[in-house]
Amino acid sequence: MKYRLAFIGFGVVGQGLAEIMVESRDELKQKYGFDFDVVAVSDKVKGSVYDPNGLDLEKLLDLVRKTGEITGYEEAPHRDWDSLKTITDTNANVIIEVSWTDLKTGEPALTHVRTAIEHGKHVVLTNKGPIALAVRELEELARQRDVKIRYEGTVLSGTPALNLGLKNLAGAKITRIQGIVNGTTNFILTKMENGFSYEEALKKAQELGYAEADPTGDVEGWDAVGKIVILTNVLMGGSITNDDVEREGITHLTLKDIEEAKQEGKRWKLIANTEILPDGSVKASVKPVKIPLSHPLASVSGPINALTFTTKYLGDVTIIGPGAGKLPTGYALLTDLLDIHRELSSKEI
Amino acid sequence: MKYRLAFIGFGVVGQGLAEIMVESRDELKQKYGFDFDVVAVSDKVKGSVYDPNGLDLEKLLDLVRKTGEITGYEEAPHRDWDSLKTITDTNANVIIEVSWTDLKTGEPALTHVRTAIEHGKHVVLTNKGPIALAVRELEELARQRDVKIRYEGTVLSGTPALNLGLKNLAGAKITRIQGIVNGTTNFILTKMENGFSYEEALKKAQELGYAEADPTGDVEGWDAVGKIVILTNVLMGGSITNDDVEREGITHLTLKDIEEAKQEGKRWKLIANTEILPDGSVKASVKPVKIPLSHPLASVSGPINALTFTTKYLGDVTIIGPGAGKLPTGYALLTDLLDIHRELSSKEI
Repeated sequence: MKYRLAFIGFGVVGQGLAEIMVESRDELKQKYGFDFDVVAVSDKVKGSVYDPNGLDLEKLLDLVRKTGEITGYEEAPHRDWDSLKTITDTNANVIIEVSWTDLKTGEPALTHVRTAIEHGKHVVLTNKGPIALAVRELEELARQRDVKIRYEGTVLSGTPALNLGLKNLAGAKITRIQGIVNGTTNFILTKMENGFSYEEALKKAQELGYAEADPTGDVEGWDAVGKIVILTNVLMGGSITNDDVEREGITHLTLKDIEEAKQEGKRWKLIANTEILPDGSVKASVKPVKIPLSHPLASVSGPINALTFTTKYLGDVTIIGPGAGKLPTGYALLTDLLDIHRELSSKEI
Repeated sequence: MKYRLAFIGFGVVGQGLAEIMVESRDELKQKYGFDFDVVAVSDKVKGSVYDPNGLDLEKLLDLVRKTGEITGYEEAPHRDWDSLKTITDTNANVIIEVSWTDLKTGEPALTHVRTAIEHGKHVVLTNKGPIALAVRELEELARQRDVKIRYEGTVLSGTPALNLGLKNLAGAKITRIQGIVNGTTNFILTKMENGFSYEEALKKAQELGYAEADPTGDVEGWDAVGKIVILTNVLMGGSITNDDVEREGITHLTLKDIEEAKQEGKRWKLIANTEILPDGSVKASVKPVKIPLSHPLASVSGPINALTFTTKYLGDVTIIGPGAGKLPTGYALLTDLLDIHRELSSKEI
């Protein structure tokens, strides 16, 4: 099957996917029967191009590398379509939503996703905003319009997390999910284990690009809150919002706390947790927890992420992998595209 | 969709699945649209029963618990069909192959699986024998007869391993898989870390039922060899046999070796490894390796199993979970049944 793809946004993640797709085009076709044209790219800063017959993806990547924008792609018949017109008026049948993240409003991504679904187009995204805020509405809308929406990369980037719970662990009865879902804070805590103060560790994280100039979203736990809301609503049958999550950041942890935990054979981790309580309700939290060294989550260090699923029939199953990065997050979108393809093509047979 | 299931064998694993299915019947129907009748059970020791209209699974489990056999199920119209007649002549459309394991010949399971496929019946199994020996032949046969064969439980029991590589990591370009795939040896090595001699640790494993009276299959690495052959042939495009695997067991490891590794900040693990070499060929081995404590596999202790997938686009992804046990292995069969159901029902829509 040949898909016509449109990128809404062409920043780091979009380019990551584009690089993988250029490299893997032949293998994707031969091994999975997945063939594609990229027909449009629309980025608020880098410009927009649309060619119903398909664009040269390598050329686009090259232009961005050299000029920082894609407006130099002069052969494209349409070069001024904004994101919404690109979604509604191009011949794309799959929208790759990779604009910026706003955890409070979900915009503009939320409108992009809604519009795409309403126009009968499949959507893949790694943007936590729309999924944390409106996953049930969007899933229901997609069901009504008979299109697919996939968002594996919203938690743990390309490391299997949502599909692991939804498919691989289907029927295992998940009662709890806990883990390390923010690489920045885990990097800082790992540095503190090695003797850095919180401030020094944060500075190192900023130098390496793991933390932003204003690190509040990471160190106060907001990023992790968005992810545990998604895990709760997608995998635990919950229907919660950010406000329902008990939240505590890592800014108050001192080297003394770290040292004390060490003495107890434990290690501080910022743990996102969601569990089904005895009364059947679901409770979610994000807070620093002292984990025994024998627990698989204790040995997860640096910017790596991990989740432990507690299940009735399998006991604990833990997955460990990258939680961010250009290629891992770009790959998350590919995993979503292949999942959609798998479902659509088994229909065809 | 309602499936008609037949159990070939009704030992620990089959009963594990049966218990899960009795408990989960309503949820499986409501949540996944998976409905079933068990129409036949044929076990060489416990007897055989067949009722085209469906058997009472709870009653069967109860009979086994109380009498050790199922021949007391007097209402069944047919009570003397052997495994082959059960496969060929009952109205079952899915065969659950849970007879005993023979790694050398794969029999009788291999004949059961071939026969089922040839008669147009889907097959799920957790038996390493037929898969390690003949996975390519069986997959090709299933493709020709348009039926499904699934065997997630042959590696890491119900912990996602094969499907993780085949589906979740599709397109990530796996270059290496290494891990702990035998719980008995990992339990013994963990005990040795705690000061037990090899002989004491083995005795403890035998007492707990982790090791058999003749432990050769585990401690000399044969069980792990079967699993790395499966991983190689299913996930790495290999076509190898047991004889192609470099094999070394753990019987020669002493407390001195364990202590020396500790001094180096390492830990001995029996590591099964398969990787694509620079020339494109695949090489597999099973041998004790000193793993740095910082590696996720180092903290996997006791009878737990784990696999690290090294990929081009995601880097390392590690999964940790049970590798054996009544319910985990029974659940592996359920995960296979649900996977088959997912594919068949998306066809129907």
